[in-house]
Amino acid sequence: MDNETIRRFGRRVRLGMVGGGEGSIIGETHMLALRADGLCELVAGALSSRPEVARASAARQMIAPDRSYDSYAEMAEREAARSDRIDAVVIATPPDSHLDIARHFLSRGFDVICEKPMTRDALEALELSQLVHDSARLFCLTHCYTGYPMVRQARDMVQAGVIGKARMIEVEFAPGEPGTAIEPENPDERHWRFREGSMGKAAILGEVGSHAYNIACFIGGSRAEAVSATLATFADRREVYDNAYVTVRYQDGAQGRLWSSYVASGNDMGLKFRIFGDKAGLGWDQESPETLVHKPIGEPAVVLARGYGSTSQASRAVTRFRAGFPEGYGLAFANLYTDFAKALIARELGIPNEQYLRELPSVDDGLEGMRLIEAAIASHGSGGDWARLSNR
Amino acid sequence: MDNETIRRFGRRVRLGMVGGGEGSIIGETHMLALRADGLCELVAGALSSRPEVARASAARQMIAPDRSYDSYAEMAEREAARSDRIDAVVIATPPDSHLDIARHFLSRGFDVICEKPMTRDALEALELSQLVHDSARLFCLTHCYTGYPMVRQARDMVQAGVIGKARMIEVEFAPGEPGTAIEPENPDERHWRFREGSMGKAAILGEVGSHAYNIACFIGGSRAEAVSATLATFADRREVYDNAYVTVRYQDGAQGRLWSSYVASGNDMGLKFRIFGDKAGLGWDQESPETLVHKPIGEPAVVLARGYGSTSQASRAVTRFRAGFPEGYGLAFANLYTDFAKALIARELGIPNEQYLRELPSVDDGLEGMRLIEAAIASHGSGGDWARLSNR
Amino acid sequence: MDNETIRRFGRRVRLGMVGGGEGSIIGETHMLALRADGLCELVAGALSSRPEVARASAARQMIAPDRSYDSYAEMAEREAARSDRIDAVVIATPPDSHLDIARHFLSRGFDVICEKPMTRDALEALELSQLVHDSARLFCLTHCYTGYPMVRQARDMVQAGVIGKARMIEVEFAPGEPGTAIEPENPDERHWRFREGSMGKAAILGEVGSHAYNIACFIGGSRAEAVSATLATFADRREVYDNAYVTVRYQDGAQGRLWSSYVASGNDMGLKFRIFGDKAGLGWDQESPETLVHKPIGEPAVVLARGYGSTSQASRAVTRFRAGFPEGYGLAFANLYTDFAKALIARELGIPNEQYLRELPSVDDGLEGMRLIEAAIASHGSGGDWARLSNR
Amino acid sequence: MDNETIRRFGRRVRLGMVGGGEGSIIGETHMLALRADGLCELVAGALSSRPEVARASAARQMIAPDRSYDSYAEMAEREAARSDRIDAVVIATPPDSHLDIARHFLSRGFDVICEKPMTRDALEALELSQLVHDSARLFCLTHCYTGYPMVRQARDMVQAGVIGKARMIEVEFAPGEPGTAIEPENPDERHWRFREGSMGKAAILGEVGSHAYNIACFIGGSRAEAVSATLATFADRREVYDNAYVTVRYQDGAQGRLWSSYVASGNDMGLKFRIFGDKAGLGWDQESPETLVHKPIGEPAVVLARGYGSTSQASRAVTRFRAGFPEGYGLAFANLYTDFAKALIARELGIPNEQYLRELPSVDDGLEGMRLIEAAIASHGSGGDWARLSNR
Repeated sequence: MDNETIRRFGRRVRLGMVGGGEGSIIGETHMLALRADGLCELVAGALSSRPEVARASAARQMIAPDRSYDSYAEMAEREAARSDRIDAVVIATPPDSHLDIARHFLSRGFDVICEKPMTRDALEALELSQLVHDSARLFCLTHCYTGYPMVRQARDMVQAGVIGKARMIEVEFAPGEPGTAIEPENPDERHWRFREGSMGKAAILGEVGSHAYNIACFIGGSRAEAVSATLATFADRREVYDNAYVTVRYQDGAQGRLWSSYVASGNDMGLKFRIFGDKAGLGWDQESPETLVHKPIGEPAVVLARGYGSTSQASRAVTRFRAGFPEGYGLAFANLYTDFAKALIARELGIPNEQYLRELPSVDDGLEGMRLIEAAIASHGSGGDWARLSNR
Repeated sequence: MDNETIRRFGRRVRLGMVGGGEGSIIGETHMLALRADGLCELVAGALSSRPEVARASAARQMIAPDRSYDSYAEMAEREAARSDRIDAVVIATPPDSHLDIARHFLSRGFDVICEKPMTRDALEALELSQLVHDSARLFCLTHCYTGYPMVRQARDMVQAGVIGKARMIEVEFAPGEPGTAIEPENPDERHWRFREGSMGKAAILGEVGSHAYNIACFIGGSRAEAVSATLATFADRREVYDNAYVTVRYQDGAQGRLWSSYVASGNDMGLKFRIFGDKAGLGWDQESPETLVHKPIGEPAVVLARGYGSTSQASRAVTRFRAGFPEGYGLAFANLYTDFAKALIARELGIPNEQYLRELPSVDDGLEGMRLIEAAIASHGSGGDWARLSNR
Repeated sequence: MDNETIRRFGRRVRLGMVGGGEGSIIGETHMLALRADGLCELVAGALSSRPEVARASAARQMIAPDRSYDSYAEMAEREAARSDRIDAVVIATPPDSHLDIARHFLSRGFDVICEKPMTRDALEALELSQLVHDSARLFCLTHCYTGYPMVRQARDMVQAGVIGKARMIEVEFAPGEPGTAIEPENPDERHWRFREGSMGKAAILGEVGSHAYNIACFIGGSRAEAVSATLATFADRREVYDNAYVTVRYQDGAQGRLWSSYVASGNDMGLKFRIFGDKAGLGWDQESPETLVHKPIGEPAVVLARGYGSTSQASRAVTRFRAGFPEGYGLAFANLYTDFAKALIARELGIPNEQYLRELPSVDDGLEGMRLIEAAIASHGSGGDWARLSNR
Repeated sequence: MDNETIRRFGRRVRLGMVGGGEGSIIGETHMLALRADGLCELVAGALSSRPEVARASAARQMIAPDRSYDSYAEMAEREAARSDRIDAVVIATPPDSHLDIARHFLSRGFDVICEKPMTRDALEALELSQLVHDSARLFCLTHCYTGYPMVRQARDMVQAGVIGKARMIEVEFAPGEPGTAIEPENPDERHWRFREGSMGKAAILGEVGSHAYNIACFIGGSRAEAVSATLATFADRREVYDNAYVTVRYQDGAQGRLWSSYVASGNDMGLKFRIFGDKAGLGWDQESPETLVHKPIGEPAVVLARGYGSTSQASRAVTRFRAGFPEGYGLAFANLYTDFAKALIARELGIPNEQYLRELPSVDDGLEGMRLIEAAIASHGSGGDWARLSNR
């Protein structure tokens, strides 16, 4: 999007946020990501369900006191009535509230940016998908890792036939930090992420597995037909699964594996993928995200890097610095905000916005992720038998 | 700085910028860096010496039209008269104008953030140093690489005695992109960075060498006593040196080498350091900036990473994301802005700000860099003889 | 083993080889490995089933003409009658002949070094195991990767409790070179490795999967209880599986995955492992075999290297050069020969040889590998259901 | 060399060794290297100046008792009288004895393999060079690192113009192990490598610097015209320099730096090179010797690996295993022995041997190394002034 278009729009995209206040790690990431490129500003918020935290967090973010709300319902209603109303809401709460919050804002004509996992389960996801399609609003699920330029580069190379026909896709998201945990004796002291009540026993697949699966679909260009899954709990007293092995058959004939874990001791974040075609393989690791290794059969590896002239148009479109100046996670996340802002600005100015929409993880991507989880639970329950994904 | 203090200050630090408008690479980096942490905002600018570019650039940055100025002199004068005047000016022009711009703003009581190399030569640097000391304003030279958490970690480990007594310091900043250049026949078509008129024949030492030397001093904790230098020009028709080898004797008895080059073909940015003490060595590469390798003699290498609990307080202070989520160059640069903003906020609130001041590359660091260049030119001129740094 | 003991034995261990003549890649590797440390010499051979190749190959190896035999049967018989008879036979033929060759030599009192996969199937493996146990001869299966000092280091660290209780073991052996292959139309032109007739449809599990499983057992210290497997054929016209995904439950409660493939396009050899315990993880890659990464939870990675004083006794025992001088695959393979020679020399001199025996992959390791293959085929046949390993 | 030629020669090349007995690290490396490829055998030795060590070492190497000699003089004389006399002598003693030993054997018509540094000083080197040229015997100086296939690959790429015109060559050999040493109070307890008496004060340049310089000449294809050097001693009580910085002007217009050190704390061996031309750069590190990184300007890095079809003929000629099976230091060293053996065999059979001779570091390479040392000492003595290399 050229500077002249942005000048024509003449202001920043106005955002309100639900959740994400002080103490929220993901909230801080959203704040940084929305500010980084200067196309968005945060002007309203219901930043916490505890009113005093909400107000203090809003003051810290330089939000005017009258636009700090005690609840998302109040925010939706009062923002809808303002002439300088927010353009979009950012949903940064735990997943069991996403559907209701989205409904409040979509129904009042706000665009939506939503944290993942998208909903509690596939049924809710289906409902949200219908709401979004009926509303015709922008909806971006923050599968933030597809914001990395070299992940987009991988997708573009696969689409362009560089690796030939895809055969195997290996993807893993296995952070190691909570690996050692012996859960507290008192269930109330356990983190919500590890409580069956909040997210179901297979929460791990929503938390990290859904990212991994989203990446596999994003780069491979297909979706799972069926899975064979093995779920396990390694930490003592833990209520939920903390390790998930999923073997996947894709609709296009590829196969692959997906591993998500909370007990990969020693890993930092442990997000990486490899895809093998009949001509070449590609590999990427989130902890050195600037490069993508392209290895043709029998030939030397080529280390593509963000910023090179030889990268794809979509990769260069989200490149700020020259090669050799690492951009990192915060700016990959910012790419989602910036694509979202550009899609919104273009729509408001009546110019095409497909190139930005294409990059936004959609509500259907979210639904797809919930279907994978549903099938993985079914497969595990039947002792590893292949379970097909729903196509409701 | 805790959130309560920021709420007490109640607003963002207001910045104006000179230079850095559309078409300026470093300008875009400053814009991102100042926005990232939400403590600063850009509200005024003389963003280009060409008025129409200045105005368009200001509009793109959502600067109010009446605060887009045609010259820095005008900006200094008119901002000084406003009740909502900027707190500080950012100088993002070529170095031959820095002294005069800084004088305009310092004399009116503005704090200053200044690009490097600080001035045209050591004489100007000395004059600027006196101006700053006389003014008692904040002055930050954007030696941005010391903003990396793991560079601060290295400094803290050296200070804490982890490597023992420092013996050798190897530092290099050798980008490779312009390596192949045959300069255009018409001298006017050559980039200002490669024209003797703008920066003198040893411009390369200012452009990249000054960063490298700054890092060597920052981590090693000493300064150069004397240098033996070999300067060379490899590209055809180039007016200036494009490769500089400098051997350095430090005041504390360490020795080292500094290499800066524009013709390191195949490098991306090529900024890295190694320091060797009598107990261990440390190594860091700007292109994988999240890690610092600590290698004790005869023992396994330890790969420290940003975000670990075992990193130094100063390193953790500029850490936003958990280990495994790379932060990169933009946020390292942002750390300078954030330290600057915190130093300014604390001063305004009357609370101690030494911990932030300590992290800001100072006018004396800039003077020190110009002295190194002066000595390197002298040494080269005399065929590699050791030349002492001035201590005017 | 000290030099004095070797002087006491007073000669090199005498070997004969079956197979491995000119044109055999694995033969050349054996030749180098047996020579490297100077404890063995090759003095007899039936190096090919084609007599002229056998004789030429023997001449090239400086084997005396009267000790180049036309068949292994002849070699077993005539060597048994010599006063300077070979000590041991090396079996380097395709696996369907291993049992018969081993029987010929074991029955005449020769020790045996045998290539993998050990036999055609689990039944033959069981028979060979009984033969070896009845004979009380030395038997070494060349699972050569356990010869790497840092693989032994990993085993020793797991045994010493460094990673805590093992939870997950990820191991893969996925070479990429034959990835693109479209098999020739004429089945006779296909490589024996890809012909169903020679090794069965799951040959890949014998060729590379058996190494991977052997490593998993070696470092983890347990054996598989059951597997869930997905086998696939990606290359056109290929008769056998060329990709195998195996999820494994170990007897000690750990879980893991094993991947073996011939179509991992772009990989070179693609052999690596990771093991995660409740305290730390370890990772190793055969293509940078000198280092082993030890990553405790929440702490920096420690890069152990072959040759450091802090490595285990068993690792140092097979270390020739100081750290920083890579040893590589050939010398890892040589470690098996050297351990075998030392076990043999010690036995002949009547001194303890347990420390060497312990390092030799045994006939029972070979049997274990065949059981895994058998179970994987069963699981795949039943659609991914868990299949238990036989404990005949 | 094809197998038929080797069969025609019909025996192994017979070697005798001076020095290298028990307790000698370099001796063990020579033993392994000469055995690895099966073209050489060690049949005689004066393996130590202490007769009992010499005899025990010979017995350990399975050398017949009558061919273990008490002195090299005796060995030269008695071997010369045998019908099965050795073909060549290996000199593995400290450098001050090399000239005399070489003279004894050259004068009796033996070929010579000689450890580096070649002699005590440039004068001796000149004398040895004349002896070798007059004798017309084979002479190989064991600058073993040019035995690495990927070092030869680098040379071939530079010669083929892949990097364009060479501009800068960075080479370093800086082991870290002895870094911390405080030398013993009693000078007699100091290692001979650190005693001024044995090798002169600049011994470090002979020990490791001569390797580094040899590599720079080997890959760059030029020789030094002049140097500017800074020598230093960091360890307490050390008699000799333990750090050498040398800036180099090459005859072809390239410049470069050479660093050799014993105090690079934390390094393992620390041998690496980078060469930058006007089209591309190449980089190699001895501790991951299987790969060579080729980085064209503005394009992705290409990671060449030993064993690929795209490597040079000379690189493939010394490749044993497929890519993905690391070969390492021992086999790189073996490449020198094998090239030497092939040159010798070819000469004896009256067939061309230039392709092998070309790969052997020559007596003139050794002389060149001594000239560099001489010039570096002179430059340091005059305070860093450029000193020209002698062209006697």
